[in-house]
Amino acid sequence: MARVIVDVMLKPEILDPQGQAIARALPRLGFTGVTDVRQGKRFELQLDGPADEAALAQVRKMAETLLANTVIEDFAIRVED
Amino acid sequence: MARVIVDVMLKPEILDPQGQAIARALPRLGFTGVTDVRQGKRFELQLDGPADEAALAQVRKMAETLLANTVIEDFAIRVED
Repeated sequence: MARVIVDVMLKPEILDPQGQAIARALPRLGFTGVTDVRQGKRFELQLDGPADEAALAQVRKMAETLLANTVIEDFAIRVED
Repeated sequence: MARVIVDVMLKPEILDPQGQAIARALPRLGFTGVTDVRQGKRFELQLDGPADEAALAQVRKMAETLLANTVIEDFAIRVED
């Protein structure tokens, strides 16, 4: 039983209003030293088998099909220890 | 200029309808082998200095104040290579 993480973030060239709102709120709350914030999504997938090459290829297809909009988003897959 | 990642996930005991919807959609799309899905948020913070202990303590406070609702969410902070 492996756990796989899929991180989905807007592509760098796509405007991220949620992240900008957070970046602008931070100084008002007294926090300094953050120059940029980007917000994305994180998916934890519990597999019923090992995270072998076939399983990760499946996860990649799930990410392309369902978890990410690859027109505007990038995704990264990693196996959690 | 360091980049810090804050992962925010619903606590395990909190129901995650978004994750459940994904888990139920996967078999309909022909994907098997995933027993559970949890969806959370991922924040990328660009710092204007190094990710030293003081900066990470600040980020922890930001997460508690703004990024996560600690009543129902857990968060994890890590420095990106």
